[in-house]
Amino acid sequence: MENYEEVKWQFKPNKRVNTASQITIRGVLNAIMSALEPSDARPVIPLGHGDPSAFPCFRASPLAEDAIANAVRSAKFNSYSPTVGILPARRAIAEYLSRDLPYKLSPDDVFLTIGCSQAIEVAMTVLARPGANILLPKPGFPYYEAHAAFNNLEMRHFELLADRGWEVDLDEVESLADENTVAIVIINPGNPCGNVCTYEHLKKVAETARRLGIVVIADEAYAHLTFGSNPFVPMATFGSIAPVLTLGSISKRWMVPGWRLGWLVASDPNGYLRKTKIIECITGFLNISSDPATFIQGAIPQILEKTTNEFFDKIINLLRESADICFEKIKEINCLNCPQKPEGSMFVKLNTSLLEGIDNDLDFCLKLAKEESVVVLPGRAVGITDWLRVTFAIDSSSLADGLKRMNTFCKRHAKK
Amino acid sequence: MENYEEVKWQFKPNKRVNTASQITIRGVLNAIMSALEPSDARPVIPLGHGDPSAFPCFRASPLAEDAIANAVRSAKFNSYSPTVGILPARRAIAEYLSRDLPYKLSPDDVFLTIGCSQAIEVAMTVLARPGANILLPKPGFPYYEAHAAFNNLEMRHFELLADRGWEVDLDEVESLADENTVAIVIINPGNPCGNVCTYEHLKKVAETARRLGIVVIADEAYAHLTFGSNPFVPMATFGSIAPVLTLGSISKRWMVPGWRLGWLVASDPNGYLRKTKIIECITGFLNISSDPATFIQGAIPQILEKTTNEFFDKIINLLRESADICFEKIKEINCLNCPQKPEGSMFVKLNTSLLEGIDNDLDFCLKLAKEESVVVLPGRAVGITDWLRVTFAIDSSSLADGLKRMNTFCKRHAKK
Repeated sequence: MENYEEVKWQFKPNKRVNTASQITIRGVLNAIMSALEPSDARPVIPLGHGDPSAFPCFRASPLAEDAIANAVRSAKFNSYSPTVGILPARRAIAEYLSRDLPYKLSPDDVFLTIGCSQAIEVAMTVLARPGANILLPKPGFPYYEAHAAFNNLEMRHFELLADRGWEVDLDEVESLADENTVAIVIINPGNPCGNVCTYEHLKKVAETARRLGIVVIADEAYAHLTFGSNPFVPMATFGSIAPVLTLGSISKRWMVPGWRLGWLVASDPNGYLRKTKIIECITGFLNISSDPATFIQGAIPQILEKTTNEFFDKIINLLRESADICFEKIKEINCLNCPQKPEGSMFVKLNTSLLEGIDNDLDFCLKLAKEESVVVLPGRAVGITDWLRVTFAIDSSSLADGLKRMNTFCKRHAKK
Repeated sequence: MENYEEVKWQFKPNKRVNTASQITIRGVLNAIMSALEPSDARPVIPLGHGDPSAFPCFRASPLAEDAIANAVRSAKFNSYSPTVGILPARRAIAEYLSRDLPYKLSPDDVFLTIGCSQAIEVAMTVLARPGANILLPKPGFPYYEAHAAFNNLEMRHFELLADRGWEVDLDEVESLADENTVAIVIINPGNPCGNVCTYEHLKKVAETARRLGIVVIADEAYAHLTFGSNPFVPMATFGSIAPVLTLGSISKRWMVPGWRLGWLVASDPNGYLRKTKIIECITGFLNISSDPATFIQGAIPQILEKTTNEFFDKIINLLRESADICFEKIKEINCLNCPQKPEGSMFVKLNTSLLEGIDNDLDFCLKLAKEESVVVLPGRAVGITDWLRVTFAIDSSSLADGLKRMNTFCKRHAKK
């Protein structure tokens, strides 16, 4: 090679990306995973992330796999798709969601996205006009914070109330909002809290949004994955009170998070989102964004229409069983307290004052990983310290093993 | 429903999205498609977009379809993937690209993306520090302009020289660049121009980039789809002169644009992109971005390793044949002039002074669609007026029919 002189390279990273990307669960989980002790011969028990699909008992339905294989073999879906998604898939999703609503969604209300995450990205981006602010739950799902930061959308956090079943503090919401507030995010079924909101509470949220003149972003990634006393009620039920952007996907209910198929739906029978040109902006953003693979879109009608209730019931029963084990076993651990029996995932209060040499939730998780090869998510990753998110969607024997190790760990570190 | 008072909704669309999304080929194509005359009984001839996959003669290889079906049926790829992509896929791409390089890429140099488009988005975003500017080709591919606009990255356009086989005007590049220039974009094989750059020219581009201290973004979406005298040379060949970000995908060579699997590769044996933390920023942006479906990633090793030369040769022969038809037939049309026999797609000069009542390239395309049901892309959609992009990757009888209709159209509108 020629002898080139040394160069002063002029490119530098975009700091906005670095700021935004530091607010992710993955970053915290990676830190905890690196604390694992390779010399521990026991299997690692992953109670830190919401992806049960690797466990044989949570395997996807063969019907869904067939739908994909048939779509790809048909060679009808090798082309680029329209940026909003192909019509048969949008129609199937509109029909699927309309089953639970007092009005009928049209395919034109439905935008296909790459999982629920891209739906979050789209919603945060189109609403991020300069000077705007958004109301986010605490604890919450940090992907909202990441995209708010990336888009310079000011975040204002309202609390979910542990002693009221993790309901939204609506008084706080009213006091936080001003004339630049554009939206409120509601995650129901709750992540990380595992609660399920009642019909009455969701209606109050919609009425508050109407009073404030803001849109409700309803994150329903865990829709229908409930197994407690409260049934799942879609926020869109109240779409005629305030416009709702419903975000969802096949990831959780169908146990296929890696298939990356989700949706953003304008649940807005009065057409406010269209009149204010938010819909136009969504279409515009999708024009410059990535699309889900066309053949996965092509498989959606079959996946939504053909999956049997047996499949869903089996999953719900497994989750209910795991929730019961988790709740009972955590009761036996002194320094942990779960304020209510989980209806979705599990969020438990950590009392570090009962422990020796454990400073906080992150410290707890790092040492637990190192000493017991159990991975749990510290609350700070989802907005509040000294809580733990325990994901129990794993097979029951691994779950029991993991909880036993947590108990041993807590006993070993208990204050004398 | 209760009687609610009228509300002043506070949300408004993000104008940055609207500005960026107006710079897309899809917008222009949609306008031309709407000019089509529904009463015309003849089939529409689509010479406007680069997606041959709908034509049976350009069907994807059954081997590739099998790889997808096997991956989804294995149930090994239902989980979320790491944000950079799964290791076997990154390794397969590193090996595939290394075959043509004087050094070996590592899987850590490879980032999986949702087609080449997301690779463009990533490259434009991570380099968009405040005040920076980027050098873009004219004509070019407007997805770069859209993401530059979205990220407030200043664009400076250099010309591709029609009379020098669409080579980069390197003198202009040097005069446009300053201390805030961060990158130059090279699309080779050329889109829309259909040229293929020589080894010597690409080396000069790399040397210019080195002198300027900037990175080369090498868009190789059409890699290996060449059928003229110049062989395809990857820009990464010169990665030791200046760091190269290579963007590619399986969309074009494997005829599966709807599968949405691409890559961004740091072709940078000296590690400048790592030292300047661009790599870290890429990883960070991928942490808050969408991923390609995991089972499509899982199919990649088989797709890259098993596709036969017979498949590739058949495609190249079809394209060469179409290019020949296109070139010969366009020569017969008075008001059109193709400066060189295309080696990739086809870009032809339109001489409106020979036509009556046709104002410009857009007007030409709108009237051609309306009167002859033939869709062609006006040059303004890719940065220069009074040119036309004719995509000839369709079956040869449709192509011949379309060109005949274009000829009839031009004769009808010829100045007396």
